[in-house]
Amino acid sequence: MHQHSSHIEEIKQGSIVTPIGFRAAGVHAGLRYNKKDIGAIVSEVPANCAAVYTTSHFQAAPLKVTQESIAKEKQIQAVVVNSACANACTGEQGLNDAYQMRKIMANHLHIKEEYVAVSSTGVIGEYLQMDKIEKGINQFIFDSTLEHAEAFQEAILTTDTVMKKCCYSASIAGVTVTMGGTAKGSGMIHPNMATMLGFITTDVNISSEILQDSLSKVIPTTFNQITVDGDTSTNDTVLVMANGMAKNEALTEEHPDYPIFLELLSATCESLAKQIAKDGEGATKLIEVKVSGSKDDEEARAIAKQIVGSNLVKTAIYGSDANWGRIITAIGQTNTAVNPASVDIAIGNIVMLKESEPQSFSEQVAINYLNQDFIQIFVDLHNGKGEGKAWGCDLSYDYVKINASYRT
Amino acid sequence: MHQHSSHIEEIKQGSIVTPIGFRAAGVHAGLRYNKKDIGAIVSEVPANCAAVYTTSHFQAAPLKVTQESIAKEKQIQAVVVNSACANACTGEQGLNDAYQMRKIMANHLHIKEEYVAVSSTGVIGEYLQMDKIEKGINQFIFDSTLEHAEAFQEAILTTDTVMKKCCYSASIAGVTVTMGGTAKGSGMIHPNMATMLGFITTDVNISSEILQDSLSKVIPTTFNQITVDGDTSTNDTVLVMANGMAKNEALTEEHPDYPIFLELLSATCESLAKQIAKDGEGATKLIEVKVSGSKDDEEARAIAKQIVGSNLVKTAIYGSDANWGRIITAIGQTNTAVNPASVDIAIGNIVMLKESEPQSFSEQVAINYLNQDFIQIFVDLHNGKGEGKAWGCDLSYDYVKINASYRT
Repeated sequence: MHQHSSHIEEIKQGSIVTPIGFRAAGVHAGLRYNKKDIGAIVSEVPANCAAVYTTSHFQAAPLKVTQESIAKEKQIQAVVVNSACANACTGEQGLNDAYQMRKIMANHLHIKEEYVAVSSTGVIGEYLQMDKIEKGINQFIFDSTLEHAEAFQEAILTTDTVMKKCCYSASIAGVTVTMGGTAKGSGMIHPNMATMLGFITTDVNISSEILQDSLSKVIPTTFNQITVDGDTSTNDTVLVMANGMAKNEALTEEHPDYPIFLELLSATCESLAKQIAKDGEGATKLIEVKVSGSKDDEEARAIAKQIVGSNLVKTAIYGSDANWGRIITAIGQTNTAVNPASVDIAIGNIVMLKESEPQSFSEQVAINYLNQDFIQIFVDLHNGKGEGKAWGCDLSYDYVKINASYRT
Repeated sequence: MHQHSSHIEEIKQGSIVTPIGFRAAGVHAGLRYNKKDIGAIVSEVPANCAAVYTTSHFQAAPLKVTQESIAKEKQIQAVVVNSACANACTGEQGLNDAYQMRKIMANHLHIKEEYVAVSSTGVIGEYLQMDKIEKGINQFIFDSTLEHAEAFQEAILTTDTVMKKCCYSASIAGVTVTMGGTAKGSGMIHPNMATMLGFITTDVNISSEILQDSLSKVIPTTFNQITVDGDTSTNDTVLVMANGMAKNEALTEEHPDYPIFLELLSATCESLAKQIAKDGEGATKLIEVKVSGSKDDEEARAIAKQIVGSNLVKTAIYGSDANWGRIITAIGQTNTAVNPASVDIAIGNIVMLKESEPQSFSEQVAINYLNQDFIQIFVDLHNGKGEGKAWGCDLSYDYVKINASYRT
């Protein structure tokens, strides 16, 4: 599904523990009925670190603690994550709980508190059950097997139906570096700046500053271009740990292989982002919208995201109905420089609108295409050289079912 | 449901034909299977006129023709409306069809073409069946009975399940003036500047300029504050005809009774807007969100609309789940000056968050409240004196059902 250059190689069996020096764990602490609900990733040595967070006014307590940890030395060695409870809108007690969770993890590993990042996902407005958190952390046994990676991948899920993960490698400065990632997110997905939870490990040798810069460069075209339901969570975080154990010479932005690293990071983020969109609550189809011919790339991304976020487009795709009028409606309401007389729209390779005039097409061919589980929508505005993509999913009965009874 | 001052009186049996000098008609022209699908309102004399339109880039052809009509003499005498086909994204032919529809209506009434406004609603990207339009118009027999008003009210509906209408009167400058309104709209409802279709008649004597000014004043707090699905249609129009037949002295903005007229117009727009929200596709409940304590009114309205438009809030209300965390999430992502430490949230009179600290409440009491069909959400930001309301509906299985198979 992802196209990348020959510089990047996908490691199908890889995960967050494939890069040198990373181990993982995940256990059932009783926060959820019968699913692993707390997990952690640990690096053999302190790793350089970059992160992006939700832009919500109501940043959850663990985000504050994680930012504090990273600010201290720009390095962390472990991240501990629980599901079931977001520890958001929990006031003073919630902040104390997040500090306490960090401390328990640091003690368990015998490392400094500021080397630990903490993360939570789940219901807003409930307190962490600290006794269970403590018991869970103390059960962690870290290793770098596939089972351990999957234990972590499972522990971070909430309404997700599948685990998300990817792994890529590339040759940088004459050395093979590896990058693994995992993510969770199914509802409340409309990232702005960062998505739900994403954790990326790599053994590349790169400074925290350049890592942060690189992450900020790829986020706008990857995680920020997915939407499931238009809601930006209080807990969205993407965290990258780079422990340098591949022992390449330290990567700078001037290094001839720096573009390859950017591509590696972009491939990882895009893969995880699309896996989240595909597993959107109740989703039966992954939708990719590609907009070209806009004034600039930013405008193309905004229009693509508006289309893929439209309930009317999402329900039409669910019903395999080639109702391109709803695509026009979504484009029409964006605050962009659209020329209403020069728009092309195609669903798959079926052209439905050409220079804003309706084209006849076979409904049956359209239905056959729309019955697949990966749907591409192409829009050409003939108004410039900008282009961009966005990803989302259809809106089904199950979306309503899942969300009408989430807490209970 | 609507609170208005003692100056305004609701006329329960009233409609668009209750103001002096207005008549209506509606017939089945075969655009839809078995429902009236074309209708018109006529004034005995040319009426002063005001209108607001969609801000979509893709304004439908009839909107262009109506704007041209109104621009000519700032007066119209009739408006003709069809459902089933929006005549949007139909290029040159669509524009010619809209002109032709105007001409047929003018000929039928023996009035000037520029005294006719035209309006269409339905599927985007299909052409009007002009033979049926012509046959329909020529069947019109106008009268001012309740049956004739209802024939028009029915003719403009698409996926609506009920007709929308209201009627109010007030004493202005010593004379009783009456205002009637009707509207359609159920899906693709997220007005920005104007909503779906709204038609308001009044016998008040007021210039087109002051009428336009008054309409622009009340739209931001009424029609623009409803959302069903976040999509702004290509055809949204609100049209007011004021034929002056109540014979009050011409109303100016300096007249002591001008505020009463504004209140009359606001009551009419708010009533129609709420009826649209309540009849949102698949809706089982009307949701009213009231935000106070914001920096200013505009910010309060933006936050209220964000909350009422959130799929997660809408599904929670559908499921009678007091999941106030989703309200926080909606507030959190607005581009406003929210203080995250000072927010109060109540659903009905059940306080759930107080100065951003969760409050304990009885889940059963909350469920009982949420099982009703009118749900109020109150948010106090304790951050200023701004306040505003927005209206929407819950998101149900039927929303998906209706929209997964709209065209077919």
